[in-house]
Amino acid sequence: MNVATKILLVVLDGAADRPTVNRKTPLMAANLPFFDQLAREGIVGIMDVIAPGTPPGSDTAHLSLLGYSPKKVYTGRGPFEAAGVGIDVKPGDIAFRGNFATVKDGTVIDRRAGRINDTHRLAEAIREQVHLDCEFIFKESAGHRAALVLRGENLSPSITPTDPHHIGALLPSQPTTTGPSPQKTAKLVNDFTRQVRAILSDHPVNKKRSEAGELPANAILLRGAGVVPHLIPFEERTGLNAAVIAATALVIGIGKLTGMEYVPTTGATGHIDSNIDAKVKNVNRALKTHAFVLLNIKGADEAGHDGDFNTKAQFLTRVDAAMSELAIDESTLVVITADHTTPVSLREHSGDPVPFLIHGKGVRTDEINVFDEFFAALGGMNRIRGVDLVPVLTDLLGKGQKFGA
Amino acid sequence: MNVATKILLVVLDGAADRPTVNRKTPLMAANLPFFDQLAREGIVGIMDVIAPGTPPGSDTAHLSLLGYSPKKVYTGRGPFEAAGVGIDVKPGDIAFRGNFATVKDGTVIDRRAGRINDTHRLAEAIREQVHLDCEFIFKESAGHRAALVLRGENLSPSITPTDPHHIGALLPSQPTTTGPSPQKTAKLVNDFTRQVRAILSDHPVNKKRSEAGELPANAILLRGAGVVPHLIPFEERTGLNAAVIAATALVIGIGKLTGMEYVPTTGATGHIDSNIDAKVKNVNRALKTHAFVLLNIKGADEAGHDGDFNTKAQFLTRVDAAMSELAIDESTLVVITADHTTPVSLREHSGDPVPFLIHGKGVRTDEINVFDEFFAALGGMNRIRGVDLVPVLTDLLGKGQKFGA
Repeated sequence: MNVATKILLVVLDGAADRPTVNRKTPLMAANLPFFDQLAREGIVGIMDVIAPGTPPGSDTAHLSLLGYSPKKVYTGRGPFEAAGVGIDVKPGDIAFRGNFATVKDGTVIDRRAGRINDTHRLAEAIREQVHLDCEFIFKESAGHRAALVLRGENLSPSITPTDPHHIGALLPSQPTTTGPSPQKTAKLVNDFTRQVRAILSDHPVNKKRSEAGELPANAILLRGAGVVPHLIPFEERTGLNAAVIAATALVIGIGKLTGMEYVPTTGATGHIDSNIDAKVKNVNRALKTHAFVLLNIKGADEAGHDGDFNTKAQFLTRVDAAMSELAIDESTLVVITADHTTPVSLREHSGDPVPFLIHGKGVRTDEINVFDEFFAALGGMNRIRGVDLVPVLTDLLGKGQKFGA
Repeated sequence: MNVATKILLVVLDGAADRPTVNRKTPLMAANLPFFDQLAREGIVGIMDVIAPGTPPGSDTAHLSLLGYSPKKVYTGRGPFEAAGVGIDVKPGDIAFRGNFATVKDGTVIDRRAGRINDTHRLAEAIREQVHLDCEFIFKESAGHRAALVLRGENLSPSITPTDPHHIGALLPSQPTTTGPSPQKTAKLVNDFTRQVRAILSDHPVNKKRSEAGELPANAILLRGAGVVPHLIPFEERTGLNAAVIAATALVIGIGKLTGMEYVPTTGATGHIDSNIDAKVKNVNRALKTHAFVLLNIKGADEAGHDGDFNTKAQFLTRVDAAMSELAIDESTLVVITADHTTPVSLREHSGDPVPFLIHGKGVRTDEINVFDEFFAALGGMNRIRGVDLVPVLTDLLGKGQKFGA
């Protein structure tokens, strides 16, 4: 073959940063011999995942990096979280992210119910005892997390969160409604919230927690309402059968909603303790059966949110070492990038462009030998938008969608 | 004058490539002292003629390079081919590209009728003997090529090709119709196809061909249907009276439909044997009377489609030598670029950006001394879109269209 035939897209979640310690970024401070080698043999550039100066969410960023314009398809984070925790969502469903929380005297006193770990019995009670005027699906996820899906006619996603987002706030007795005729949905959310309060307050699990001095998980806070969008499957758009390897429900959900096969990895936690070696082994396996593999590695983003420069740099060093075990040759285009910048100085996503490199058959190379934010800005790819990445990659495979004749 | 007053836009059709032989592209392997000099004295960059990763057609590419957004004005290749072969098309006409072909027992056995060369008597018979329920214009072009224009009320361009695009396929008895109410047009195309079959099958030219063991040209295959768009004349948009120098009907047609004067060149074939010296002499002449000259040189694209690296590089070397006879000074902005990349490794258009250089009075220069894909990516123009080129050039003439006050 004269062209590469497969694509591995590695998203180092939140890895990009601003110069901080000694005017270096964590990528600059990290030891990245493998990424540097890929940069030397390939081409680099910077990318506005959404648009210059727009901090992407992880959801909109991944949509963009997969070639879906988030401005056209994004309705909220709920649908992707719900798909990610294993709910078989359908276009038109209204989906929410949820937290198990602790409410006392109507006031939210802990948004994570003392970082509760096992909620499966509580979730079971909710599934069995809540009765709504529409079909609903509720599923617990890792830690305090959960997802709720409402399914039925004339439902609206124009629902403000019931999650007040800071402790000490009142649990809203009813979500504010926006947009046309969402009263029905607001009533459903209100019914759900009220019934859950009643069911969980008396639940044996919570009684036991209270006795042990732990905060009871006696409420569900909802946010990220969105109608499940119809996304044209990635394979239909690109001709590439795809797999997603990730630890976070959001990225798994985006993969599922775009028709990718989710390949679970034992030991992948989404935190800085994640078993990256296991993920790399999974990638090597998935590339034997799939033409496109999306690998998300979350830890650097977490360190960014924690404002922890050294942990971020050390984690990236560890990722580089693990990735050097990739069993790939020139026939696989490898892309290393981030979904957004999470500066340790901000502890939040920022709108700085992210660096990216493309390695493999057919790419025009450049003079850059290093993978970081600064040298990426001098690379042969110049500056592109996130939504252009997949067209660039499929075109390198000789599968570009010609416009004109 | 403090600014340049004229523009020469040189489109080296399909000249851009991917690294292939010794990781070089044909532009890198070619000997280009003149282009390198222009690059040294001018500024370079890379250009997404349509969008990153989108392989342009030659039609959409040239529209873009002339400042017309193909997404807004492109309806199909037929209108430009028809204009290019000399049909005086009018906005609203439905135009097709056509091939003389060989059909046997209802099956297309040669899409080019044995690469027939002289079709003027066959075309004459079609013009005289076909009767349709609307006005039509049919004109033969070089080799096996032709164009058909339908003119009348309530015609639709939503017609699938009657050209099956591969041999051994049935000649469709009727084109598939898409979009609203195109039955009338489908019937016209069907009538045309049927009558042409009858007229050509018995034609003396074909009898003689069959006797000589040559394939008869007994059918016309149609494709590229499009309604002739209304294009604001280039001179009205830019204030520059323009000329087009090209060998291919498509580029000539785009020039004509944008109101340019077509300056024919004896010996310009559109192939790698083309008389480039004659074209350059024509350019020197045209620049005395026109403020904008579009020069298209086709050969490199042909070599790219043939997958012939050495021919492509040698042709580019020859073009550079011929272009060094340009009689220009700083008052003419010279642009050297390609309409798209045609990698010899793909033999098809790709969506890689093309390199470009701008030379002449007023341009900001950069440190780049070489004209090729790699150094262009490091140039002072960075990365722009094709549709932005003409605004950049006219602005350099001091004729930018101010937005705001």
